[in-house]
Amino acid sequence: MNGSNGAHALISSLVASGVDVCFANPGTSEMHFVAALDGVPEMRAVLTLFEGVATGAADAYNRMAGRPAATLLHLGPGMANGLANLHNARRADSSVVNVVGDHATYHAKYDAPLQSDIAAVAGWASGWQRHSGSAHDVGADAAAAVAAARAGTIATLVLPADVSWDSTDAGTAEPVTPTPRPTAHPDAITSAAEALSSGEPCVLFIGGDAALADGLAAADRIAAATGAKLLLENFPTRMERGAGVVAVDRLAYLVDAALHQLSGAEHLVLVGARSPVAFFAYPDKPGDLVPPGCRVHEVVGRTGLAAAALEELADLLAPETQPRLAPAARPELPTGPLTVETATAVVGALLPEGAIVIDESLTSGAGLPAATAGAPRHDLLCATGGAIGWGLPAAVGAAVACPDRPVWCLQADGSAMYTISALWTHARENLDITTVLYNNSAYAILRLELLQVGAAGFVTNDGKAARALLDLGGPQLDFVSIATGMGVPAVRVDTAEAFADALRTAAAEPGPHLIEAMVPALVP
Amino acid sequence: MNGSNGAHALISSLVASGVDVCFANPGTSEMHFVAALDGVPEMRAVLTLFEGVATGAADAYNRMAGRPAATLLHLGPGMANGLANLHNARRADSSVVNVVGDHATYHAKYDAPLQSDIAAVAGWASGWQRHSGSAHDVGADAAAAVAAARAGTIATLVLPADVSWDSTDAGTAEPVTPTPRPTAHPDAITSAAEALSSGEPCVLFIGGDAALADGLAAADRIAAATGAKLLLENFPTRMERGAGVVAVDRLAYLVDAALHQLSGAEHLVLVGARSPVAFFAYPDKPGDLVPPGCRVHEVVGRTGLAAAALEELADLLAPETQPRLAPAARPELPTGPLTVETATAVVGALLPEGAIVIDESLTSGAGLPAATAGAPRHDLLCATGGAIGWGLPAAVGAAVACPDRPVWCLQADGSAMYTISALWTHARENLDITTVLYNNSAYAILRLELLQVGAAGFVTNDGKAARALLDLGGPQLDFVSIATGMGVPAVRVDTAEAFADALRTAAAEPGPHLIEAMVPALVP
Repeated sequence: MNGSNGAHALISSLVASGVDVCFANPGTSEMHFVAALDGVPEMRAVLTLFEGVATGAADAYNRMAGRPAATLLHLGPGMANGLANLHNARRADSSVVNVVGDHATYHAKYDAPLQSDIAAVAGWASGWQRHSGSAHDVGADAAAAVAAARAGTIATLVLPADVSWDSTDAGTAEPVTPTPRPTAHPDAITSAAEALSSGEPCVLFIGGDAALADGLAAADRIAAATGAKLLLENFPTRMERGAGVVAVDRLAYLVDAALHQLSGAEHLVLVGARSPVAFFAYPDKPGDLVPPGCRVHEVVGRTGLAAAALEELADLLAPETQPRLAPAARPELPTGPLTVETATAVVGALLPEGAIVIDESLTSGAGLPAATAGAPRHDLLCATGGAIGWGLPAAVGAAVACPDRPVWCLQADGSAMYTISALWTHARENLDITTVLYNNSAYAILRLELLQVGAAGFVTNDGKAARALLDLGGPQLDFVSIATGMGVPAVRVDTAEAFADALRTAAAEPGPHLIEAMVPALVP
Repeated sequence: MNGSNGAHALISSLVASGVDVCFANPGTSEMHFVAALDGVPEMRAVLTLFEGVATGAADAYNRMAGRPAATLLHLGPGMANGLANLHNARRADSSVVNVVGDHATYHAKYDAPLQSDIAAVAGWASGWQRHSGSAHDVGADAAAAVAAARAGTIATLVLPADVSWDSTDAGTAEPVTPTPRPTAHPDAITSAAEALSSGEPCVLFIGGDAALADGLAAADRIAAATGAKLLLENFPTRMERGAGVVAVDRLAYLVDAALHQLSGAEHLVLVGARSPVAFFAYPDKPGDLVPPGCRVHEVVGRTGLAAAALEELADLLAPETQPRLAPAARPELPTGPLTVETATAVVGALLPEGAIVIDESLTSGAGLPAATAGAPRHDLLCATGGAIGWGLPAAVGAAVACPDRPVWCLQADGSAMYTISALWTHARENLDITTVLYNNSAYAILRLELLQVGAAGFVTNDGKAARALLDLGGPQLDFVSIATGMGVPAVRVDTAEAFADALRTAAAEPGPHLIEAMVPALVP
């Protein structure tokens, strides 16, 4: 057979537009897409066993590769399963191209069992969506989807089965030039420069592409020259860190700590960051973290060219100032029982050059920023949208995007279980991912939140029912068994020495590993 | 503290309306709900590690208990994770009450990271939804949600954090009488009776509550007296089967087989079933399975009182006819290598009295209907909406609803991985679930579908990329390791004898077990 059907046109058009990886979890409606893959060998299809793995992988792939991957999802329920990590991608302004198979156009009227309102679920997370109407158009639809995604959004192309299988001679569509990312308006630069040089207390709050080394350097020059306090958003899309890069504090997750960081500011200059707000509402605490009376100056939004704006500001305000780069510095390798503190020190002591750190460690990662600030240069990726179950999938995407770099996935236990099947894809693709699975047998973050929201005082009787919902200890999860069952070599450690040994072993053997780090819960 | 806040009012009102089980996966916004649980000990909270487990459990709970359970989900992403199994619940017309925590009402304006359009995702699957506005109203909102659900739909109540934590003296809300389920109109009975007694070829196509023993008996009396052909919808919500119950064929999944079942019919009488359509579209095959020229008579819809309508028809058409009940009959216990055929025979030979069979076996379950038709009386539940990842969660709900009955969960491997963390809940709650995990190391159903949709002919080159997306063999999943890691005792079998031994062992030890049945894929 030749490849002159819609599916072939779609895949070849994706490739022509620079999308050559597809994280896939197909079903019947996508069989012609699957069948067309061998005809376009430039497209790499990576099988995931759950759609949330595909979408989380696509998010992290974009963050590291700088261009979108595609996902292949099966009708409304498949799209639905991918939504939580698309939420994270949306909050990261990641570029993702979803291809969602649908019933043949003429079949929709029968309301067959898998029929649903795909537009509704697609619209929840997507900044762009289109229902492809014919095999003749689907290549151009794909090019439009990629262009839309490249502007920093999630583009969802719904692909009816007959659009896949119908013949077409439309061929491969030309790439479409994406809308450029916004740049700072000169007035905004002027206004920010005035605030920063006013001598009044000023916080320079940055995010977006300003979290990479160049943006951080420019921001630090401004801070050094003006006395402004430099802060980065709390869950950056991609942050460069380590020796030779400017070290920057991130906005704290806990409201009181964040308020302390911002207190006294009379100007808040936003460059690639949104105005700071509390992650959750807490009784008697503010949601808007901007101090009363503080003036907010937005230079450029989160999808804009933030680093360029900072460089412009730095040239104005700090032409002679050099950035203060973090010196190389590592914690001593600790000994003794594994705790959050010793585990953190081990990570800091051994993190390799060029690592990509996927951080979904939650409470077990307390102290990581300080412990790794002087480690060899590395990237840090966070779940920007707060939807858990992102880490193991994101590791897939980062490793596929950067096959020559080690990926360290620092993963909490409760969150891991949402998308645990990602481990199988780690193994199938032989990805160089070392997962540190912090097993504290609890939703420790929720124990903290129970206190934070003042709910603990409402617990009555013996509190057994409430406690049970925050406890993962009965039965205790055995992540060595789980990982082994999915083809990932795994080891359990409960001392700092064993943890260090396991990390060294993993580093010496490329491919996936899981280290189950048994740590006491930070919040008992 | 006393319990006079919104969360307490909500939970006590759910209990007063007959909802006393909550499948929960909470987060920060739900902490006051969690804290209030010990104050209403009649509410049983069952922790799941993923929202799709909670919703699948709630679906099956309703099917077996005949009343809704609640779920507790965390904001938009938590709702999103639960959608796929809510899709199945919607297609089953199950009653489910979702409680979805949200940011405090005054926090929404900050567009914090977890903020999203909950109404959009809730609306995708829910027949009823409400955003609760105050602690004073939330009890009444809960009562309204339960009433809406009881009419055969999914009711979603969005619960802002401040509605949970605000004080109220509104107390426990009175139950609301649900809208009665529809009954057959007398004209529809008359029309159907005329068709059935016309002497012209007639198919009596039933579903809904007609799949229980009484409805099946009435339907069979009609069929026996009139010569009509009796067929049940292909994926019943809950079907009673086995010795002493009328055996009935289900509509085939494969289009050609279904067309054959319906061919020649001049009248199609629908009682609790929707008019038959193809599950998917296939090139050159019809989507509407009703034969050309056949007249369709709808007696009552799927949520209606179908069994009662059949009894009315039977009294008209077959007053003296007795139903033909299936005799007790079991396959011989086979010996030798485990195959789909021998595994099916073992299940038929050993299925215990009163079992609840959760069937997500897909291709590995071929032949099960025949092999179990004469087994001791049991219930069969299917994923009505075709969204996979339903079986292991549904087993939770069935076991919680019917603690004195053995649950056999017949589960395909690929589908299992979508919601594999359900096994942990099997263990935590010590549920009497025996999971038969058919490991054929493939998405065998998709190998079949690749052929069915004619896509196989489009595979080019060596077909390696296409084949890889349907293959689960590299690495092979080890479900014994995975289950053990989640606290479920597990054993792998590859002979019929070992399979039978394992089933007997599981039956002798109440509580969860997993038997990994190694079977060759039905479609190589």
